[in-house]
Amino acid sequence: MKQIRVGVIGLGSRGKGNLKTILTIDDVAVTAVCDIYEDRCRQGCSIVEEKGQPTPFSSTAYQDILCREDVDVIAVFSSWESHIRIAVDAMKAGKIVGLEVGGAETVEECWELVDTYEATGTPIMLLENCCYGKNEMLVRNMVRDGLFGEIVHCHGAYAHDLRGEVSTGKENRHYRLNHYLHRNCENYPTHELGPIAKILDINRGNRMTRLVSFSSKAAGLKQYINDRKDTFENKELIGKDFMQGDIVSTTIACAGGETITLTLDTTLPRSYSREFTVRGTKGMYEENTNSVFLDGEKESFDTAKHYKEVIDNARSYEEKYLPDIWKNITEEQKKKGHGGMDYFEFVAFFDAIRHHKPMPIDVYDAAAWMSITALSARSIAGGNIPVEIPDFTRGKWKDRERLDV
Amino acid sequence: MKQIRVGVIGLGSRGKGNLKTILTIDDVAVTAVCDIYEDRCRQGCSIVEEKGQPTPFSSTAYQDILCREDVDVIAVFSSWESHIRIAVDAMKAGKIVGLEVGGAETVEECWELVDTYEATGTPIMLLENCCYGKNEMLVRNMVRDGLFGEIVHCHGAYAHDLRGEVSTGKENRHYRLNHYLHRNCENYPTHELGPIAKILDINRGNRMTRLVSFSSKAAGLKQYINDRKDTFENKELIGKDFMQGDIVSTTIACAGGETITLTLDTTLPRSYSREFTVRGTKGMYEENTNSVFLDGEKESFDTAKHYKEVIDNARSYEEKYLPDIWKNITEEQKKKGHGGMDYFEFVAFFDAIRHHKPMPIDVYDAAAWMSITALSARSIAGGNIPVEIPDFTRGKWKDRERLDV
Repeated sequence: MKQIRVGVIGLGSRGKGNLKTILTIDDVAVTAVCDIYEDRCRQGCSIVEEKGQPTPFSSTAYQDILCREDVDVIAVFSSWESHIRIAVDAMKAGKIVGLEVGGAETVEECWELVDTYEATGTPIMLLENCCYGKNEMLVRNMVRDGLFGEIVHCHGAYAHDLRGEVSTGKENRHYRLNHYLHRNCENYPTHELGPIAKILDINRGNRMTRLVSFSSKAAGLKQYINDRKDTFENKELIGKDFMQGDIVSTTIACAGGETITLTLDTTLPRSYSREFTVRGTKGMYEENTNSVFLDGEKESFDTAKHYKEVIDNARSYEEKYLPDIWKNITEEQKKKGHGGMDYFEFVAFFDAIRHHKPMPIDVYDAAAWMSITALSARSIAGGNIPVEIPDFTRGKWKDRERLDV
Repeated sequence: MKQIRVGVIGLGSRGKGNLKTILTIDDVAVTAVCDIYEDRCRQGCSIVEEKGQPTPFSSTAYQDILCREDVDVIAVFSSWESHIRIAVDAMKAGKIVGLEVGGAETVEECWELVDTYEATGTPIMLLENCCYGKNEMLVRNMVRDGLFGEIVHCHGAYAHDLRGEVSTGKENRHYRLNHYLHRNCENYPTHELGPIAKILDINRGNRMTRLVSFSSKAAGLKQYINDRKDTFENKELIGKDFMQGDIVSTTIACAGGETITLTLDTTLPRSYSREFTVRGTKGMYEENTNSVFLDGEKESFDTAKHYKEVIDNARSYEEKYLPDIWKNITEEQKKKGHGGMDYFEFVAFFDAIRHHKPMPIDVYDAAAWMSITALSARSIAGGNIPVEIPDFTRGKWKDRERLDV
């Protein structure tokens, strides 16, 4: 397979960005593009042409892409709720799948993803770019070297003020508005959970067994819209109640005795963070302050003073632990989406395809991580009941060996 | 009541410290001391004498103190598990009670505390010093002024590396060792929960309705002891398994729709923090970085860079919002326990007694906050089940008015 030929499905903001990144990978061609909106298809074609590649086939129906002989790989960047449907159909059509992240609507569709993979053997990778993040890879290497001892607990968040993006959803055809109006769950777990699950060897020697989710009230979006009501375009949203709680707190138990806490935090004022935190018997890492604390170091009772002293001290570990791809990142690579991690993710994806390697984030990871959304909805709706997390490996997790990204 | 006469029960490390602080309050005399250990009683007497007060009555049996006519107030600084028993007996004996913090062993004893108070009318205050903390009082005033909008979520932790203190418990007669060997729960919730409960008007217009707790495995103490085994005095602890999980994550739902997350974090290496965090529709406060973020401020996708810029910016709010007691704190007051907050707490306690004011942290607060320990144990033992938090006010929370410390 000299040139890998890709069909891109979903050309919204994320899809267009990913399309541009894919077009920078050596020996990869985009031969087909698809979006439910015509104008986005035309934009997609232009992006491909601007890179000097032939005008791709284009359609508003993804089935038209799946049956094409000039497509080896399907990249799914469509709306959250369509991800798994398209991925399943693509695998059935024999197309290798790169699946953009998102939460699953139901546990059943996660099983369908796994069942289809096992029936067809078609490779599939969940494109969780944060697994390729600089902090995440640095800390993963520190964990693997034993610096933090035995890992006991991890925390992460998707803490990103999306009030503007969500509340203007109708005008910019952003489908997330409907999620926030009608659902209440941990709607976007994988950015923080992915790197944690990799560290904890989930599906490879360990597994997530149970979760409970709590939702706070939904006050942030209503307040945000009300504060801007004179100039707010979508008048029907003024005074409207949203279903999606502002803060969703999820706790997950693992077979190895570790706990994971996840926070969804997208409708209150704040600065961005994934709050990536790793706690072990010999040390810890906290992403907010990019700081490391090791056993035996001096503790302080003046908290802010302590953090002022240690903030960003993780940089001193980069020489020893930062992967080469991040040490040698070029200015050009940094521009390829989210500071470079999108590029590294696609390089890994196409490398696995080209050399027939196992996918670094495979179907079991995709099913387990994405299922958190559906399971959290069930826990919240049931009154914060514990919900069992299915073992999508059907017992194989006990024997599967570690596979880091 | 010119002079308030105090009987102090419990003279371990905390009790001795509090005794010294009490002896600095105007028109307060310590007329009796008690501890189950004789030598501690003698030390208590010496501390009182050194302050120029007459040698107090002394006994190893607390009942001997409760029946004394020269005692108006009982201050309970004994082991966690004896707090409520002594407080109940003191109220029955007609003695005003100052109750050091700690978690309740059972929900029933929390009810007994409330029932005894309602039957006797004897004033009782939970001595939660962190309600008088500098950050906590600053942020409380910011919340009351509406700076953060509607409060949606709060977080707090008791994050304090107690591995040394707990594991050498036998030598220093520290009873906590047995808690860590035999129990698994949120064993110390009130330092972080108290200030949060006050902000959220718990028992006064709001109440905590439900919790779920998760415990990580218990690996920290075993590792700590093993790493020091050559010199570790208490040889029988080497290789011993502890029951108490290293990280206990508790989530609490409130009647007003707010959520609270609490973390017990006492057996892994880290620096101290209460992680006090307040999230509202218009802004937030985070204690780790002592930082404020308000709606409309510039967000950043470079998390550590952001926190480097905002760290300690809460100081700029002190002029407007810091209470006078903290603005005018003297060097002498700062030395009176935990940077001054212990002193402020005792001033408030004795002021309420002297002027017959309602206790700023009353029996309903004590019962609700302390019950979290027993309820978290139930949730963990049951497999992370949701546990209802009793309404210790029996419905009066709906009509009781806000009372800040």
